[in-house]
Amino acid sequence: MPRYALQVEYHGAPFAGWQRQADQPSVQGAIETALSKLEPRDHTIAAAGRTDSGVHATHQVAHCDMERDWDPFRLSEALNYHLKPLPVAIVQAAKVADDWHARFSAHERRYLFRLVTRRAPLAHDAGLVWQVKHRLDGAAMQAGADRLLGLHDFTTFRSSICQAESPVKTLDELRVVEIERPNGQEFHFHVRARSFLHNQVRSFVGTLERVGAGAWTPDDVTTALEACDRSACGPVCPPEGLYLAGVGYKDAPFD
Amino acid sequence: MPRYALQVEYHGAPFAGWQRQADQPSVQGAIETALSKLEPRDHTIAAAGRTDSGVHATHQVAHCDMERDWDPFRLSEALNYHLKPLPVAIVQAAKVADDWHARFSAHERRYLFRLVTRRAPLAHDAGLVWQVKHRLDGAAMQAGADRLLGLHDFTTFRSSICQAESPVKTLDELRVVEIERPNGQEFHFHVRARSFLHNQVRSFVGTLERVGAGAWTPDDVTTALEACDRSACGPVCPPEGLYLAGVGYKDAPFD
Repeated sequence: MPRYALQVEYHGAPFAGWQRQADQPSVQGAIETALSKLEPRDHTIAAAGRTDSGVHATHQVAHCDMERDWDPFRLSEALNYHLKPLPVAIVQAAKVADDWHARFSAHERRYLFRLVTRRAPLAHDAGLVWQVKHRLDGAAMQAGADRLLGLHDFTTFRSSICQAESPVKTLDELRVVEIERPNGQEFHFHVRARSFLHNQVRSFVGTLERVGAGAWTPDDVTTALEACDRSACGPVCPPEGLYLAGVGYKDAPFD
Repeated sequence: MPRYALQVEYHGAPFAGWQRQADQPSVQGAIETALSKLEPRDHTIAAAGRTDSGVHATHQVAHCDMERDWDPFRLSEALNYHLKPLPVAIVQAAKVADDWHARFSAHERRYLFRLVTRRAPLAHDAGLVWQVKHRLDGAAMQAGADRLLGLHDFTTFRSSICQAESPVKTLDELRVVEIERPNGQEFHFHVRARSFLHNQVRSFVGTLERVGAGAWTPDDVTTALEACDRSACGPVCPPEGLYLAGVGYKDAPFD
């Protein structure tokens, strides 16, 4: 059975997350249903990151095994046809080796978090960013972010239902960039690591927002990290600003 | 009666355009209804640009006359409260002189047009950009755009129902910028003039897309312009990529 890697973009709002569930819509379930239109049988696909309810992706990577030898471009077109009108798009497909695995072959995940500050409601970006009503200090947020880089026990920034074997991870990048936008401030958080704990990015951003607002200092971030205690974390921010934005592979399936 | 300038952001999709209509939803009608919640009576507001059905704004400017002396910030907050859940936001309000007029005091309008090229459907930007499925040459589009700058008879790029007295206008800017985005190409067209003819920006972009696709040359744009004939125009592109993005005033009401 030929194996295909799929680059998947989706809007998180209509889904209870990536993972297939019996009684709730999921991105995995939507793609598996589309696959069953192409080859009628049960399909099970795997993905690099099992995003939570409401979380978006611009560059999720999944793989599927097919009976027919599909041209990758035709496979992506056929899937997009059957995915309509759901906000899920197969941006690219590529044939990969039989032992290539979307999850286990991945050595890096990249997330983007979009945060907008302004009073007035958002006419265009509602649901696509986290909105707070007060201005934030980007330099202070970066100073706080710098305290989290490197190898740490991230128990403070890990959901109580996290199933990872160890809370010790290496955070390779946490960069805060202010983006020009018509009305209000917009900050992009670029976050990169080999793997993440459950709710780790949202725990980071919720905590750093407190630093940007002046309620926490960068030293408070260090104190929270060193506490290795979930209750030391700042508020976990909502999912609608979070995007799975890239996955790194030694044998990259796409251009 | 104190007069207030309002900076208005809106999503064009649910509205039949800016202008109030008896039997269809309009942005003007939505704001006037919100004003009648604050001061119960008929309200009539004026705007810098009467955008068409489906066209967005990040920076429309309108003015309203009130009986009470409103603090501008409180006025914007109260309007936003009553506008919910419509995708219309009062980003700023400011007190202006009695003879200041959102339309007649304006000496410049700025539009942004967002064009995305890719095959796969758009999970996040659907309705916010014009999507074409083929790649485009940005330098060719800029070369075509340069042929339109300056003082011209723009009859070719004017809708047949345009009510402007003269088709002769000066186009001050038509800049094509490629924007980095996760999947596909995105081009921003920045367009600036004292005033515009009906459908002028969408006629420009629809024509320049043909140049970017290689179907037209920049010389064809000059030929079309010089024809002064509506039938010489390229296809008029859809409204969902168009944003009224700024209005210039000698006495600018906002920071």
